[in-house]
Amino acid sequence: MDLYFMPLACSLATRIALNEAGASARYVEIDPLTKRTLDDSEDLFAVNPLGLVPTLRTDEGDVLTENASILQWVAERFPDARLAPKDTIGAARLRQWLCFVGTELHKGVFNPFFDRRAPESVKTYALDKAKAALAHVEAHLAKESYLTGEFSVADAYLVTVLHWTLATPIRLDDWPNLKAYFERLRERPSVARALDVERPLYVKELARHKSA
Amino acid sequence: MDLYFMPLACSLATRIALNEAGASARYVEIDPLTKRTLDDSEDLFAVNPLGLVPTLRTDEGDVLTENASILQWVAERFPDARLAPKDTIGAARLRQWLCFVGTELHKGVFNPFFDRRAPESVKTYALDKAKAALAHVEAHLAKESYLTGEFSVADAYLVTVLHWTLATPIRLDDWPNLKAYFERLRERPSVARALDVERPLYVKELARHKSA
Repeated sequence: MDLYFMPLACSLATRIALNEAGASARYVEIDPLTKRTLDDSEDLFAVNPLGLVPTLRTDEGDVLTENASILQWVAERFPDARLAPKDTIGAARLRQWLCFVGTELHKGVFNPFFDRRAPESVKTYALDKAKAALAHVEAHLAKESYLTGEFSVADAYLVTVLHWTLATPIRLDDWPNLKAYFERLRERPSVARALDVERPLYVKELARHKSA
Repeated sequence: MDLYFMPLACSLATRIALNEAGASARYVEIDPLTKRTLDDSEDLFAVNPLGLVPTLRTDEGDVLTENASILQWVAERFPDARLAPKDTIGAARLRQWLCFVGTELHKGVFNPFFDRRAPESVKTYALDKAKAALAHVEAHLAKESYLTGEFSVADAYLVTVLHWTLATPIRLDDWPNLKAYFERLRERPSVARALDVERPLYVKELARHKSA
């Protein structure tokens, strides 16, 4: 399978899930400005018309898009890794958290900070939204170690999003449970390895854009 | 089961899905300003700490939140209604569209127009985002009648979101396939009945807020 990714973008969650599953993949790096592959300048839009990562091509040649959808596909493709609850309510809870992280946190709070065209007022609006969204997860993590009982693909997504606090004005200082969760999760082998691979690529990306 | 809804909000999609399944439910109307039930002034936050609709309480007493998650639960709970593809890739495509409609359209484009605190610049930014998102669905509907081959809960969500074009500056005139899809879907019995029930409630809601 091929995973199109941008360093430390939300595609990191899929890498973490594949690490958990011990699955191998061809990781294809995309430059966020050109939306082309670094290796051979292939156009991402030709693979995914939205030009978004993660984009995953299965061994059967099917192209999958949208983070929450790809993460659930990985969980189903590698059931032994136990990356998703199997019971009906557990499955509903998993989707609930994937949905929440995708809409309220990723899209609602963090997205404007990674969009060069977003005006300041849009960022201020997003910061204002952050409080309620973070408070909701904080309250849950006061009672639970993971989003759905055990580690799941929803945690892979949440730790990816929380990692963006390092590059945005959104801070975890007011949220001790979230902060402890983030510190614990980033030490988890699947996450630590994913960060070890993508962090240097991100630094190179920044240098490339600076010199351009 | 109980469905907490606000007239013509995204909870409409769940009502459409339940109509498709011929399922009965207690529909509990929430006032968007007070976040309380109209009948007995029950606080929505006591049921769902995010104060969002749809919120669904199953007959077993489980409380489900997040639109995409609830829609998939309905599809699984009523398999005879065939509201979701069953094969692995079909399931991935369904989640892909639920995810896309939830993040790129609902959250990314329409949400600011229903938030009284959103400044004008945030709405301008959202309008700017609308083009690429609508173009993506337009291209898909040039080839397909529904999002995933046959009618699914993703269509219930999309027609709900497209219905908001009637109350926002977002127009479908540039997107003939989307416009035709919307016109066709709103005539579908499950959708038409849902609109027939919620439209008068929405009108009452507006009048209530105006006189308040």
